[in-house]
Amino acid sequence: MYTLYYSPGTASMAVHQALLEIGAPYELKLVDFDNDAQHDAEYLKLNPHGVVPTLVVDGKPVVESAALLMLLAERHPEAGLAPAIGSPERAAWLQWMVYLSNNLSATYRFWFYPMDLGTAEHVSHISTALQQRIADVWDNLDAHLSAHGPYLLGEQFSSADILLMMLMRWSRNMPRKSAQWPALAKLADLVRARDSWKELNQLERLSGW
Amino acid sequence: MYTLYYSPGTASMAVHQALLEIGAPYELKLVDFDNDAQHDAEYLKLNPHGVVPTLVVDGKPVVESAALLMLLAERHPEAGLAPAIGSPERAAWLQWMVYLSNNLSATYRFWFYPMDLGTAEHVSHISTALQQRIADVWDNLDAHLSAHGPYLLGEQFSSADILLMMLMRWSRNMPRKSAQWPALAKLADLVRARDSWKELNQLERLSGW
Repeated sequence: MYTLYYSPGTASMAVHQALLEIGAPYELKLVDFDNDAQHDAEYLKLNPHGVVPTLVVDGKPVVESAALLMLLAERHPEAGLAPAIGSPERAAWLQWMVYLSNNLSATYRFWFYPMDLGTAEHVSHISTALQQRIADVWDNLDAHLSAHGPYLLGEQFSSADILLMMLMRWSRNMPRKSAQWPALAKLADLVRARDSWKELNQLERLSGW
Repeated sequence: MYTLYYSPGTASMAVHQALLEIGAPYELKLVDFDNDAQHDAEYLKLNPHGVVPTLVVDGKPVVESAALLMLLAERHPEAGLAPAIGSPERAAWLQWMVYLSNNLSATYRFWFYPMDLGTAEHVSHISTALQQRIADVWDNLDAHLSAHGPYLLGEQFSSADILLMMLMRWSRNMPRKSAQWPALAKLADLVRARDSWKELNQLERLSGW
């Protein structure tokens, strides 16, 4: 039994989708951002930076979406969310998990939270630069998927696609949306067709994307 | 046989130290930043964003320091750089690997490369905010190490400490240096005493830290 502390549509959604793919029993606990519940003293004990997700695993809190996706893939190998250790695709899977986290999650953080850069609203050259960094990643991923897709690991769906799908969705209100890149749009269509994605959207009451 | 594309003291140094810990045969290839060699067409084929490290593994280029540390730990379990899959410390190891990469590597990138934020030099509120984000991470890590150290996984040295050591070193010219946090300073002393650290500093001709 897992307990997932989440907020709809945020960084917790990739972990939530992985739990649905696995079919493992879990309990959902809403962290109510509207009431700043991520900064409650009780929650900060689980997650000192006051972010989601936190997944309680064997009674201990674990944080960081990409780490949780890796942990769940290891604990439930039968779900096929990661290539086996020692297999040729393993290096690529590790690379994409870290690449997405490092190059997109962190940049989005600054995009969505200008206060993390000490400002209430981004001035235009910063806004442009952050968008460009994100667009550079879409360029790179689209080139990779066009040549070696449809998924990040080729024919094999993995947790790297779950992480990518979440990060693609976050661009939906940006001037340049990830779905403008054709191979990325194709991957999104494939993930949208999965039961786990449909269930996730119902459970988190997400508006369509 | 591995081939490591590196530049002294950069994000490649953690991967270099892991190779030394493992004792695996490897070849070093300098990417000469002074001549902008990271943007040479040949290198961009290996590493489309023009950064280091790139490690060639079984003839294929793999990128992202944290991913490479994870891959090397898996391929050389006898080196003991990661807890075994299924062991109680495994979740913590995965978490710290991603946490460090996500919360420090990405923020340092903006600190060291203001052009990535569209500016030749940071204005003071941005400089302050980036430093504060890094200091928040030192606070969190120092609290963890004080309670559960001396290494990130307690008594067990791991590749997470190698990654942390590199990231700590990068603060050495900042107003608030990581070594001002006592439990972090203690960890650094322990890593400095390792043969792999001494050899790394000689091979990359790093000035003392």
